[in-house]
Amino acid sequence: MPYTVGFDFGTNSVRALIVDVRTGEEVGTGVHAYRSGTDGILLDPGNPELARQDPRDYLDGLVGSLRAAFESAPGTFNPADVIGIGIDTTGSTPLPVDADGRPLAFDPRFAGNLNAYAWLWKDHTAHAEAAEITERAGELRPEYLAKCGGTYSSEWFWAKILHCLRVDPDVFDAAATWVEHADWMPAVLTGTERPDRLRRGICAAGHKAMFHQDWGGYPDEDFLGSLDERLRPLRRALPDEAYPAGQASGRLTDDWAARLGLPHGIPVSVGAFDAHLGAVGSGVAPRTLVKIIGTSTCDLTIAPVDQDLADIPGLCGIVPGSVLPGHYGLEAGQSAVGDVFDWFVRRVAPKGMDHASLTAQAEALRPGESGLLALDWHNGNRTVLVDQRLTGLILGLNLHTPPAEIYRALVEATAFGARVIMERYEEYGLPIERVVNCGGISASNPMVMQIYADVMNRPMHLSRSTQTCALGAAIAASVAAGEQAGGHANFESAIEVMTGVAEVSYDPVPANAAIYDRLYRLYRRLHDAFGIRGERDDLSDVMKSLLEIRDVVRTGIPTPHPLDPERGMDASPIGLTRS
Amino acid sequence: MPYTVGFDFGTNSVRALIVDVRTGEEVGTGVHAYRSGTDGILLDPGNPELARQDPRDYLDGLVGSLRAAFESAPGTFNPADVIGIGIDTTGSTPLPVDADGRPLAFDPRFAGNLNAYAWLWKDHTAHAEAAEITERAGELRPEYLAKCGGTYSSEWFWAKILHCLRVDPDVFDAAATWVEHADWMPAVLTGTERPDRLRRGICAAGHKAMFHQDWGGYPDEDFLGSLDERLRPLRRALPDEAYPAGQASGRLTDDWAARLGLPHGIPVSVGAFDAHLGAVGSGVAPRTLVKIIGTSTCDLTIAPVDQDLADIPGLCGIVPGSVLPGHYGLEAGQSAVGDVFDWFVRRVAPKGMDHASLTAQAEALRPGESGLLALDWHNGNRTVLVDQRLTGLILGLNLHTPPAEIYRALVEATAFGARVIMERYEEYGLPIERVVNCGGISASNPMVMQIYADVMNRPMHLSRSTQTCALGAAIAASVAAGEQAGGHANFESAIEVMTGVAEVSYDPVPANAAIYDRLYRLYRRLHDAFGIRGERDDLSDVMKSLLEIRDVVRTGIPTPHPLDPERGMDASPIGLTRS
Repeated sequence: MPYTVGFDFGTNSVRALIVDVRTGEEVGTGVHAYRSGTDGILLDPGNPELARQDPRDYLDGLVGSLRAAFESAPGTFNPADVIGIGIDTTGSTPLPVDADGRPLAFDPRFAGNLNAYAWLWKDHTAHAEAAEITERAGELRPEYLAKCGGTYSSEWFWAKILHCLRVDPDVFDAAATWVEHADWMPAVLTGTERPDRLRRGICAAGHKAMFHQDWGGYPDEDFLGSLDERLRPLRRALPDEAYPAGQASGRLTDDWAARLGLPHGIPVSVGAFDAHLGAVGSGVAPRTLVKIIGTSTCDLTIAPVDQDLADIPGLCGIVPGSVLPGHYGLEAGQSAVGDVFDWFVRRVAPKGMDHASLTAQAEALRPGESGLLALDWHNGNRTVLVDQRLTGLILGLNLHTPPAEIYRALVEATAFGARVIMERYEEYGLPIERVVNCGGISASNPMVMQIYADVMNRPMHLSRSTQTCALGAAIAASVAAGEQAGGHANFESAIEVMTGVAEVSYDPVPANAAIYDRLYRLYRRLHDAFGIRGERDDLSDVMKSLLEIRDVVRTGIPTPHPLDPERGMDASPIGLTRS
Repeated sequence: MPYTVGFDFGTNSVRALIVDVRTGEEVGTGVHAYRSGTDGILLDPGNPELARQDPRDYLDGLVGSLRAAFESAPGTFNPADVIGIGIDTTGSTPLPVDADGRPLAFDPRFAGNLNAYAWLWKDHTAHAEAAEITERAGELRPEYLAKCGGTYSSEWFWAKILHCLRVDPDVFDAAATWVEHADWMPAVLTGTERPDRLRRGICAAGHKAMFHQDWGGYPDEDFLGSLDERLRPLRRALPDEAYPAGQASGRLTDDWAARLGLPHGIPVSVGAFDAHLGAVGSGVAPRTLVKIIGTSTCDLTIAPVDQDLADIPGLCGIVPGSVLPGHYGLEAGQSAVGDVFDWFVRRVAPKGMDHASLTAQAEALRPGESGLLALDWHNGNRTVLVDQRLTGLILGLNLHTPPAEIYRALVEATAFGARVIMERYEEYGLPIERVVNCGGISASNPMVMQIYADVMNRPMHLSRSTQTCALGAAIAASVAAGEQAGGHANFESAIEVMTGVAEVSYDPVPANAAIYDRLYRLYRRLHDAFGIRGERDDLSDVMKSLLEIRDVVRTGIPTPHPLDPERGMDASPIGLTRS
């Protein structure tokens, strides 16, 4: 009865999932919410771009989530049957550590200094440094940029480190190195935190830190030195190797075995990002796009390494082995999806209106009938514009616009954003035939999935598991454990038995798809006008085109439409009893 | 003790105001809300552009509002001392009437047919016909267009009549003529409803129906016939003269004298639009812009008729005598102002948040600190774009944007819209030195007035009267009554004693004005990009410029700004007690 445990460190909480290695059955799960800050995020009211986390929450979360998972498991489950641990986290979420690999956040000298904490993926304080890295790489190392979509993001490893160096040299100087959250967790569990022993994952290194075998690993010292001389020693301390998930980072220490109640010495897989292992847990394959839809999205696919693949502008990375061995892992994503809907419900919409009531009203609307169009950039644009200094837009408002129309327009905007990503893959020789969705929204909101099917004009499948990231981590653990220990020889065989899609799926409705084609063209024009430097467009038809579409949808007749006096009479609220 | 009565027919109700002719003191006032439809407006749920009114409400409103005004007046007031009646209404609000001048809405054949009712100013069903008239006039009679800003509006007389002809020929054929609400009311009170006896006002005719002495009054028959042959007889039945307010339309009939409780035979002034008489009630003068701020605005000024005045593109009209004799009346306006704020409060914002609470929060914000920018086109754009098929836009949204920031951005958008109008006047040789505001919002919301002062960089005065439209109607009545009857010989002397400004006024704050100059330039670019055909702009800097302004306002430091670790420490919600 071999089991593995997958830990999925999300933005606000960590989940532990206990999985039957032979069937993929999820026999136990538990969630531990981070305790610090606002929903686990340390914020600075004076700087909305700042988002940090306390590594203590990560450690507490290991124990807390697994204990809850044990409690939820049936009596037939025995922790002694666990053969391996896998881990995924958000990213790029680097934290500065000392020479023992201990987070500076734990150093009393830096108590309360948020720069010493983990720099959460959604921290955008480093946008100026990201722009600087992009510019410098464009001059000196264009090949670095080409592998990460042409633009280095403020969310990523080097931008954050450089920003720390600039604004808080004390923290920078005290750091022996910076470690991705995804790498730090396996190191802690296996007692390999010391920088010279730590195994770093190819997923984080390749997608966020410009690591590539073509140039011998991390960016070279001269390039980093051109950004700031003080980066040179940091680079020299970095290793030349990075490892894929499915390889062991080390073996569970006695101490952690005791704290977790798991067998000591079992392998802990090299860590990876939530999205990449989520793709694994969703059964990722060539020509399949896996969309992990949460507060933000990741949109991943893979391609055989023997395919002749061009560099794809705007992608978050093209990294051999970052998802599955033998394949390029290709990552794209939207900076906010669920977060956009949450913003509207929590901050703006009438009290008492929640996602359910807004969805019920929005579902009754037909595509195009509101005349609204939105840009889903409330948290910037990760793909394909790679620009965190973009913001959300709503257009087409009139004096009658109700909240449900805005809510639907926001959902549609995220669908249009998803289509931009899909089309970028296709333009570069990666046709997408099916989409497998996972994450809470995909399972809980059929309206969202139908709109995605109609906008993207592809069938939307749902992953069988509702915890694909944690499942992917458990799959990585089963591969790290290996066949002999009761695990799997490779990812292919693990995916074969441990993943699947749900019975329910969503097919595009041709009439809706036709309307959304028109709306998407308008979205794309706003996208380019506000997002791409040098684009000059005459937008004076945009509002009118939306009204034309609205009128056609409402009346079936192109503008100008005659008023039907009968309809006017019947539908009017006029009191006919007066004479 | 001479008094006059001004009736102000608004969008949702009618007000009667009893004014002491020698002082301007308002001794009594009463309001009567229209009873039909939604807040007095007959709507069609299937066609959001339709807005009609029932003329019965107008008749009921005369009696109801005056009765209430009588009740509010002190015992010293005697209705027998009323020497004249003045009337203003919304417009263009034409209604079809039969050969006796009786509204077709009262004909049982058309009971419940909204096309037979009054076509309220905000009815936009005729946008296609307005475009057609603009195009045809551009070809055949460019001089017609030049006097009404270059574009004929869907809100106006001929567009509405032509639309009725197209969609409901039965109503069109049954109409002996169409009468503006402002002309119909005096006709009813003086028994001169019959089309051949009716005196039409220069205000409505000149601003909305292309009436001008340069071409002998209304548009010529051949031009109208080129739109549709069936318009020819309608044109032939129209008079060649139109009259200014201050002249008598006729004398109060015995029947109406009895119903109203006023002396029979007193003069009833020729009617005019609410905004024009509102300008009179605000003490309009050259170089003074009067802004009447309500659900929408009118922005009026005057210039001596001997000034060499160019045609001003985008204005609603340049009509000699439409405001004051001897002066051009120049009308501009915003299609929605109070309506935009109301939309947000009533439809979108969290329950329990009203104008007062949103204003309190929005007032605490500094200019530019939200990063938001909006276009105030929720009801189209009347001046200077003259395009009802434009819609509202909000840009700069992020995941933290609260309702108060949106509310303030909407207020600012209307201020930017007001500045566009002011600048258009100034570009054409009409410098604006002071602004006198009237209407409920100007008196009740100091934040709005301060934002207007800062955005327009002009002192904002408030009219002393809070009912300037009704006061202007009472002034017109005093002029119609004449000096001998205890009234005034002309408008100048009436304005001198009957109007004034309030003690409170709002001066621009230079620091705010500087920020708003930057924001206005961005507003103007969006305005032109979405509003003007053929404008091609690169808008990719707009969102970033807003963030830069935001960052400077918040931190005093241009982007990129260093994070102050002390500030991060103090301001962060992190729990410092954990070790």
